[in-house]
Amino acid sequence: MTQVLIVGSVGIDTIETPFGRAENVLGGSLVYAAASASLLAPVRVVGVAGDDLAPSETEFLAKRGVDLAGLEIVPGGRTFRWSGRYHYDLNSRDTLATHLNVLADFDPKVPLPFRTTPFVFLANVDPALQASVLRQVERPRFTVLDTMNFWIEGRRADLERVLTHVDAFIVNDAEARQLTGQANLVKAARAVQKLGPETVVIKKGEHGALLFHRDQVFSAPAYPLEEVYDPTGAGDAFAGGFIGHLARVNRAEPEDLRRAVIVGSALASFAVEEFGVGRLARVATKDLEARIRAFADLSRFA
Amino acid sequence: MTQVLIVGSVGIDTIETPFGRAENVLGGSLVYAAASASLLAPVRVVGVAGDDLAPSETEFLAKRGVDLAGLEIVPGGRTFRWSGRYHYDLNSRDTLATHLNVLADFDPKVPLPFRTTPFVFLANVDPALQASVLRQVERPRFTVLDTMNFWIEGRRADLERVLTHVDAFIVNDAEARQLTGQANLVKAARAVQKLGPETVVIKKGEHGALLFHRDQVFSAPAYPLEEVYDPTGAGDAFAGGFIGHLARVNRAEPEDLRRAVIVGSALASFAVEEFGVGRLARVATKDLEARIRAFADLSRFA
Repeated sequence: MTQVLIVGSVGIDTIETPFGRAENVLGGSLVYAAASASLLAPVRVVGVAGDDLAPSETEFLAKRGVDLAGLEIVPGGRTFRWSGRYHYDLNSRDTLATHLNVLADFDPKVPLPFRTTPFVFLANVDPALQASVLRQVERPRFTVLDTMNFWIEGRRADLERVLTHVDAFIVNDAEARQLTGQANLVKAARAVQKLGPETVVIKKGEHGALLFHRDQVFSAPAYPLEEVYDPTGAGDAFAGGFIGHLARVNRAEPEDLRRAVIVGSALASFAVEEFGVGRLARVATKDLEARIRAFADLSRFA
Repeated sequence: MTQVLIVGSVGIDTIETPFGRAENVLGGSLVYAAASASLLAPVRVVGVAGDDLAPSETEFLAKRGVDLAGLEIVPGGRTFRWSGRYHYDLNSRDTLATHLNVLADFDPKVPLPFRTTPFVFLANVDPALQASVLRQVERPRFTVLDTMNFWIEGRRADLERVLTHVDAFIVNDAEARQLTGQANLVKAARAVQKLGPETVVIKKGEHGALLFHRDQVFSAPAYPLEEVYDPTGAGDAFAGGFIGHLARVNRAEPEDLRRAVIVGSALASFAVEEFGVGRLARVATKDLEARIRAFADLSRFA
């Protein structure tokens, strides 16, 4: 078992789904990913928040052993805020407001003891920040990048640059199509591989995920939930589980990558069971193991 | 190994996809399903065509051992015609024209020797015709029903009536939602089970298929094709493979149903590789076996 470094956003979210509304709840890619990865391996984070974020909000991460030394608190600053509304089928959403606040001027500084972390997850933030963190880490063993439509539209050059330096890219189906102009997901994945990463994971929400590693393909199911309350953070929880598993086994062989997709899928399935990060904060290792067994049962055939 | 009886449509299709156009090619749910099932078990069909359908068109089915004694040819009649256009991502299509022709007055007569067939597939036609065929079969061992949005809209009462008499219902995701009013597919499947069938298969196109059997769920991947030329008939090929496998093993235990979904998925993946029924007509048993092995590799993890 070795360590994971995560850079990403810390946010205060307001979320509307067909099942309700949650106002000013802790969110952000760093938070969901760290909540997820910390079940599997020691996690270190690099991020920023304003002093409007109550220190009690991130206590559950510290209790899980997350090293928050790289979480910069800007005195008098306001934390990044996002609000969104999901459509009735939960597969799409409208962003109602985004206030970058302290994220706008964030210049990530990776604490010295974090700079030799072997497994690095560049969660969804401005690709220029992702690149800056990557430059500060010395020869990581395995690096994973996430992004979103906003950066594909507005920061394509920066994104393509950082893509050339990572081992794996995690993206959802719509974003893979947007990035590559390919409607067919196999072609889209192959096009992303040509941009740099040898490993591409395409998340398909309720339809599971596809892993492309060199010329191999692995298809992971989604856990068949009757109730999905809030998809926010599911992708970050997935990625946190993915890199967390690799750090736990301290290896990224083809078999490990497959298993990592299942672990990520299992954690994503917990993430959506409640509003915000609440369910992920309470998941125990034995819950995770039981759900991984359920994934095995879900996809086995003679 | 035992026999399969299939009732469905025989059609002449005109198909447009982003990759081209095929004019007046053999199609229909019976044709695709029989082409698929006949790789696995002896098949008997009940359907209707006009004498504008050249006898040479169905020769490949006869060569595969399909018993065409139940295919009624109406002298001077015109065969059912359908034309459709697929959208760029191939996940949706517009029907441009439907001419029922001889299907409009079809009164299916199941030949006497067919009436004890153990495995019965009621492929997509008017649910009243499906019910009529079902009444003529004596105590089938396992019955499978397919349908489409057109009948859910226009013949819901007939459809719900025949649903109470079948063991398994095969439907695509949009149709499952349409039939039950449930956006969540797990809830939709449970709602369909309440209408009668113990087994429900929800096809999700490029996202694979879900099998619900009693309280169990199985998730089958789709074969990751880089080129999908024509999705027409993929669902019928799937269903033909599903029932064909059950007939081949002469059993419908939970493990058989899982394997049947994989066999159906494999045959559907061949169906879309060319326009019309051409690829299915040429698939050999060894091709099918190789693709089933590819499905196993696609979904395995340690």
